[in-house]
Amino acid sequence: MAEQTRADLVITSSANPEIKAVKALATKKGRQQQNAFVSEGLRHVVEAARAGWVIRRLIVADTQAPSPVMDEARQACLDAGGRVITVSGELMTRIAKRDNAQSVIAVIEQKTSPLSDVTPEPGALWVALESVRDPGNLGSVMRSADAFGAKGLILVGHTVDPFSIESVRATMGAIVNVPLVRCDAAAFLDWRASWPGRVVGTHLSGPHRPEGLRAPTPTVLLMGNEQAGLPTEMARACDTLVRIPMRPGADSLNLAAATAIMLHGLAGGAGGLE
Amino acid sequence: MAEQTRADLVITSSANPEIKAVKALATKKGRQQQNAFVSEGLRHVVEAARAGWVIRRLIVADTQAPSPVMDEARQACLDAGGRVITVSGELMTRIAKRDNAQSVIAVIEQKTSPLSDVTPEPGALWVALESVRDPGNLGSVMRSADAFGAKGLILVGHTVDPFSIESVRATMGAIVNVPLVRCDAAAFLDWRASWPGRVVGTHLSGPHRPEGLRAPTPTVLLMGNEQAGLPTEMARACDTLVRIPMRPGADSLNLAAATAIMLHGLAGGAGGLE
Repeated sequence: MAEQTRADLVITSSANPEIKAVKALATKKGRQQQNAFVSEGLRHVVEAARAGWVIRRLIVADTQAPSPVMDEARQACLDAGGRVITVSGELMTRIAKRDNAQSVIAVIEQKTSPLSDVTPEPGALWVALESVRDPGNLGSVMRSADAFGAKGLILVGHTVDPFSIESVRATMGAIVNVPLVRCDAAAFLDWRASWPGRVVGTHLSGPHRPEGLRAPTPTVLLMGNEQAGLPTEMARACDTLVRIPMRPGADSLNLAAATAIMLHGLAGGAGGLE
Repeated sequence: MAEQTRADLVITSSANPEIKAVKALATKKGRQQQNAFVSEGLRHVVEAARAGWVIRRLIVADTQAPSPVMDEARQACLDAGGRVITVSGELMTRIAKRDNAQSVIAVIEQKTSPLSDVTPEPGALWVALESVRDPGNLGSVMRSADAFGAKGLILVGHTVDPFSIESVRATMGAIVNVPLVRCDAAAFLDWRASWPGRVVGTHLSGPHRPEGLRAPTPTVLLMGNEQAGLPTEMARACDTLVRIPMRPGADSLNLAAATAIMLHGLAGGAGGLE
């Protein structure tokens, strides 16, 4: 066991400023002010550290058993100049605002990438979401993007916060594997003009089907939002418009479901899926 | 405008027993006691009526403009012996427990089908979910099942309530188009023994891929739950086990995303998708 140092605290009160700072991350304003977000669960925290994310605070329930993975998380936090804070299970429940709270949560520094990081390597697949509204959908898309080996996610326009607790939970840890780019619609369209690869979109008028899309061409999959689909100017920016076949009269698919079908159809251009 | 009758009420108090009964449908207990659920939005309510669901109560905000569709919803409720209740927008917000409440909600009688309704017509596709836990996933799967023309959804074992408000919202109205069968695991396995069609499951050890599965054979797509996937006895009940290819080391897909990919792969056996 490490000795207790200034970086190693036991806190019992939810009025403690450290705990208040963690709880403030439940709001978008708090996340922006601190440029941080909360990740829950020891496995997800260790994966974040391994993927190079900065762990600023590690909050550990006093019931958490020691283990090599726990030591690794603790060390990653201390190495980054962070603090490890031990709390009661009851206090953890109040921090997480749910009954079955994980016994380890972390405050992690936010990180996004510029559009210039979206480079046209052969077979590279990126996902772009335009004005996505639902945090569960956004998280599920990040999880699918990770599963299908996409290089990252471009959030275009006014989107829901990818670092919200609901979004991070829905990624099931995948958020640390999926580089996030944020830009407005004008910047995306500017950038697209010099993108030498394909842009594939979904649209009710699309002549193509999700099969037969795999190609070594670097590809951006562009998906419109839950209510409106792709705006006309975005659809015009696509080389290939795809319609997922549905029964006549059917309304539509959930955004994350449609994105998963498209990613499955597109992935494999780079090979390497198992 | 219809004259005000006993079936046509104006209510201003949230303490009114009619309003209390609607609010009680927010809990599983309330839904079981009343054998009913809440559907939000005029379009969804009318689609429910057209699909033969019994509208017991129609709650209409006093700001709702008259329209032929509104008249149709009102008539469907009155024809079923139900009541039309007008409330203030403020009271509607309290009933729906959210700010952007729809101006029409309905109390609809629950309806499920027996396993004997799952009949092996050529090309028929059914979805079976084993012990699904998340209402958003369940709703998204119902929406996908509807979009791909599945005949219905079999809920196996202890599952989340398909009539919860979160689940119904996630279906985006599709719940009225997707017959629901509920059974325990033993009944499902018994029934499966005499099912002459295929059972296709997803499993990490599956030798098959989601492509090439379309067939005129009547098919049940069987999906395990969010945490554990298919239990061994359920996997053994499958004729075909499919693994969706992912990048090496990737964790998993969201259940609703995986189900959408499988449905897209399987649909079309009956033809008729557009």
